[in-house]
Amino acid sequence: MGFLHRLENAWNANGSNLCVGLDPDISKMPEKFASQPNGIAEFCIEIVEATADLVCAFKPQIAYFAAQRAEAQLESICNHIRSHHPDVVLILDAKRGDIGSTAANYAVEAFDRFAADAVTVNPYLGTDSVEPFFAAGGGVIGLCRTSNPGGDDLQMLDAGGVPLFVRVAEMISQQWTQLGDCGLVVGATYPNELAQVRTVVGDLPILVPGVGAQGGSADEVRLHGSRPDGHGLIVNSSRAVLYASRGDDFADAARAVADETRRSCSPA
Amino acid sequence: MGFLHRLENAWNANGSNLCVGLDPDISKMPEKFASQPNGIAEFCIEIVEATADLVCAFKPQIAYFAAQRAEAQLESICNHIRSHHPDVVLILDAKRGDIGSTAANYAVEAFDRFAADAVTVNPYLGTDSVEPFFAAGGGVIGLCRTSNPGGDDLQMLDAGGVPLFVRVAEMISQQWTQLGDCGLVVGATYPNELAQVRTVVGDLPILVPGVGAQGGSADEVRLHGSRPDGHGLIVNSSRAVLYASRGDDFADAARAVADETRRSCSPA
Repeated sequence: MGFLHRLENAWNANGSNLCVGLDPDISKMPEKFASQPNGIAEFCIEIVEATADLVCAFKPQIAYFAAQRAEAQLESICNHIRSHHPDVVLILDAKRGDIGSTAANYAVEAFDRFAADAVTVNPYLGTDSVEPFFAAGGGVIGLCRTSNPGGDDLQMLDAGGVPLFVRVAEMISQQWTQLGDCGLVVGATYPNELAQVRTVVGDLPILVPGVGAQGGSADEVRLHGSRPDGHGLIVNSSRAVLYASRGDDFADAARAVADETRRSCSPA
Repeated sequence: MGFLHRLENAWNANGSNLCVGLDPDISKMPEKFASQPNGIAEFCIEIVEATADLVCAFKPQIAYFAAQRAEAQLESICNHIRSHHPDVVLILDAKRGDIGSTAANYAVEAFDRFAADAVTVNPYLGTDSVEPFFAAGGGVIGLCRTSNPGGDDLQMLDAGGVPLFVRVAEMISQQWTQLGDCGLVVGATYPNELAQVRTVVGDLPILVPGVGAQGGSADEVRLHGSRPDGHGLIVNSSRAVLYASRGDDFADAARAVADETRRSCSPA
């Protein structure tokens, strides 16, 4: 079953558009994990167990694991999610972007090594650069409009009458959809642009980072970005959930924040 | 000593613009390595030993290691290069692109874990997305014009009278140079565009993939892309060098191809 089919199931199973991002920062997690050799995996798996019935997806951010030499722990987390929560979608946030045989190796990384349903990619190298991901049978989520101030530098350049990010939305919705299951990334900090992208891409799923710690509003995201049925969104919150508390109640606190965010970003 | 200073030294030390790319493909390397648990590192280190006096840089492509769960072997290779060939520049080809704390983690990966002098990055997220790499003191090489046919999809879009890749060259040469040591990537398959980028970026180093197996000409690259002193280029060849022979003579064959490419792409 492909990424889009699994995502529709996940939205319906938990009535949720929420995605919990797994960005394990040793300086912010409870100390009992920070001092353990396998503590990153143990912390993330406790977060997964506390929130799995509230989400449509989990999204590990590979940079946090790479900086800690913790790829093996990321494999453990991914295997845990796939075996214990088979209805929840697993998105590897890696923003890969390369060509030919290099992209094929990144597809092995995402879909074989980490068993992801989908991987985030950077569109700058064009459609042929993402073909190896589709050829491997995985889902591809292309960066369209990012939530950082510097996102304007290129994404807001006028490209024949519309901003570049709209051209990217057109490329994904017109070309990438011919190759396989795909979606887009649009930051929560620009709700009007989220609405603009929704009109371009029809019912494609939109992954929305920037809710919570980055200041985006989950309600605004739902109002501007959801499909008529209230789904169509993968609304990510990472730090606000993971680090809701650093005490022994960290899992309960994470669940409370996740539940509140789920209510704001999901259909009533 | 920063990336640009070390690169000038490396150009002069070996009179070479050649960079050997380390893209270890188990299906193409001599069988005695493919069957060894540490074979990827052993193969790459033999290539390094066979070519180190002919190059200005080595450039491991991290995707090939990630697909094989071989990050520890990549660490070994990088440590070997830094300790045995301290005058040669080490570039981690990772094409990272993310924001804030995520980018800071990728900087740890590139500069601490793998001890690289510089890392390749994707410019789509804008200048603030690369600040953490500069803040960590490393060099940053931004994708400008890629060698694949699909590179046209976005990079050739008209962005206010010039193609988008020229806007990227302007952003790097005007903004990124204020932040630290940087360069650009321009594929060898477009020599006229390489000349166009050279006029925009002055003396900045240009990393040029696509020579050899991808069909680009080292002579054309030198003619269109070098600075007046004949340097300014990091001309990468990966497969043509690494897989010059699969027999016991693989190291001698790699050296012969590297030497021939060096002569074509370097000052006389």
